[in-house]
Amino acid sequence: MTTTEREQQVLDRIERARRRRAKVREERITLSHGSGGKATHTLIEAVFLDAFRNPLLEPMEDAAALTIGGAKLSLTTDSYVVSPLFFPGGDIGDLAVNGTVNDLAVSGARPLYLTAGFILEEGFPVEDLLKIVESMRSAALAADVQIVTGDTKVVQRGKADGVYINTAGVGVSIRSGLGVATVKPGDAVLVSGPIGDHGVTIMLARGELDIDADLESDTAPVHELVAGLLASVPGVRAMRDATRGGVATILNEVARSAEVAVVIDENAIPVREEVRGASELLGIDPLYVACEGRIVVIVDGAQASDALAALRSHPLGADAAVIGRVADDPPGLVLLNTAFGGTRIVDMLVGDPLPRIC
Amino acid sequence: MTTTEREQQVLDRIERARRRRAKVREERITLSHGSGGKATHTLIEAVFLDAFRNPLLEPMEDAAALTIGGAKLSLTTDSYVVSPLFFPGGDIGDLAVNGTVNDLAVSGARPLYLTAGFILEEGFPVEDLLKIVESMRSAALAADVQIVTGDTKVVQRGKADGVYINTAGVGVSIRSGLGVATVKPGDAVLVSGPIGDHGVTIMLARGELDIDADLESDTAPVHELVAGLLASVPGVRAMRDATRGGVATILNEVARSAEVAVVIDENAIPVREEVRGASELLGIDPLYVACEGRIVVIVDGAQASDALAALRSHPLGADAAVIGRVADDPPGLVLLNTAFGGTRIVDMLVGDPLPRIC
Repeated sequence: MTTTEREQQVLDRIERARRRRAKVREERITLSHGSGGKATHTLIEAVFLDAFRNPLLEPMEDAAALTIGGAKLSLTTDSYVVSPLFFPGGDIGDLAVNGTVNDLAVSGARPLYLTAGFILEEGFPVEDLLKIVESMRSAALAADVQIVTGDTKVVQRGKADGVYINTAGVGVSIRSGLGVATVKPGDAVLVSGPIGDHGVTIMLARGELDIDADLESDTAPVHELVAGLLASVPGVRAMRDATRGGVATILNEVARSAEVAVVIDENAIPVREEVRGASELLGIDPLYVACEGRIVVIVDGAQASDALAALRSHPLGADAAVIGRVADDPPGLVLLNTAFGGTRIVDMLVGDPLPRIC
Repeated sequence: MTTTEREQQVLDRIERARRRRAKVREERITLSHGSGGKATHTLIEAVFLDAFRNPLLEPMEDAAALTIGGAKLSLTTDSYVVSPLFFPGGDIGDLAVNGTVNDLAVSGARPLYLTAGFILEEGFPVEDLLKIVESMRSAALAADVQIVTGDTKVVQRGKADGVYINTAGVGVSIRSGLGVATVKPGDAVLVSGPIGDHGVTIMLARGELDIDADLESDTAPVHELVAGLLASVPGVRAMRDATRGGVATILNEVARSAEVAVVIDENAIPVREEVRGASELLGIDPLYVACEGRIVVIVDGAQASDALAALRSHPLGADAAVIGRVADDPPGLVLLNTAFGGTRIVDMLVGDPLPRIC
């Protein structure tokens, strides 16, 4: 596809979306608008995309692809409101660095520079802030990025919950043209490791489940994992980090955006026993549980084993697996071949069973 | 000064700062840590700068100067927590766009792309969100920037205050080497118009003063005003938008960073009668009251009248004024020649008489 064809395709999609016009039916914001699932998508389409509409925003990827003065860049942002602030395996600080580093990495960019905006609640212990900032420092060092500018606001007691952090990130593109809209029937679907560790860790850290599992958040920077994959596999179509809404939500975005079917095999999806057990108690499918250091990769089917080998050659991808494939039909849907031999539709996340997971 | 000399100067300053090591004496965050004044500076130096220390962050300007793939860029971020969300002359939406546009503009860059991160409180009216997003849309259009990526989080009722917005911005440099550290004795100090309108408008909108003034926020994008100034005045040393902490705080940053004295004349500072009156009732000097569409300019003294003419040629600078000059002595201090013929020291803002002004 030439650049002009791609531009035309984007413009067509803008036009179609204009005609469709999503609408938020609720009068007030609910927690499900923050789940990353169905309600979040409707809110984004109906409110933000509708107002800000431009060809750079339109692909609705986690990062925007920009060209400035000849340099090809990625730009992304995320706010972090995780509760509790400290949890096994990490805290809001490294989460805020890794999350934005990962959004840049999966967009095909090498992460370079981050901004950091803090909203602090009056009364928040300075000692806790120092711990969080130290986590950010060491996460930035590990991800080889620099935090180059920031902002601090303070709101009255009861108007925040300790601290919220926003990070925005800029990276330089190492592979352009990636995106869920480029996925084709015949492609393979991989995940880089066991899913749901982060989400279940947060739920356990809240003490909402009376179980004691030996589990940590998987928060980690995936930039090296991604760079290795891109260096050896030309047929990578799209990557996403499977955060809010989990793997299921991402695959639904793939299916809708590329107008394809995604068929995955329950038996092939790596899930730790602790995550499976806790998810059952929570009444949620691990496919919807957030990871913070796992990626979903869609790759030309002929290069699936190369991609698997590339992922497995990095410690963060040691347990990578091919979990499914892309098909023609039914377009827009994700199907799961269950462990019991049946098939069911996997929809986007509805409601918000795991609020403030990141 | 050559680039190498400038780099050495920055490294020296890092070394000096390391030896000095600011320390936050409070055990808990207070509202004054968000004032933009003395406590904010100590918090930033002791906590953020100390942990993230790198030559790009070190100048402590409102935007970082980056070079990526040959392109010279500015990167900045700000979170907006203004209360109330809607006020005469604007709302949190256009404030969030203009504030970040202005930080890019005064860094000597043409603003190009913004990110937008929303933290929404459960129960927030969707209709209010639509109004805010519409303000952002039209502010982005007016400032000729695109909002290209975003993020939405929702927190439980009572864990935010309606909505907080973070914007980060990227611009392309049109003038490099600007910065408060380059200010020299003999330079002139200008403001682009009457000061304090925004801050007083917010206080009045809260109903905390029993007065009814015909006053609006000055929120506006200054990118054209700045571009006009830079195009005709080569001797611009530094620009700042006078937000939290007001003109007084910025001039203190100039005095400290450049190790010079800044001497201003009370009679020369444009202040509307309504702002002067309300400030008296609030017990605060208008010099500390935030503006959201005014800039402070430091320029080679020989080009002061050129700078004044350039500012006045734009509607946003119609009431621009030369308010003072830079001197050798006493280094690090801001002095005010009062209307009554005396002289007093103007320190950084202490405490936070105007919380959540932006």
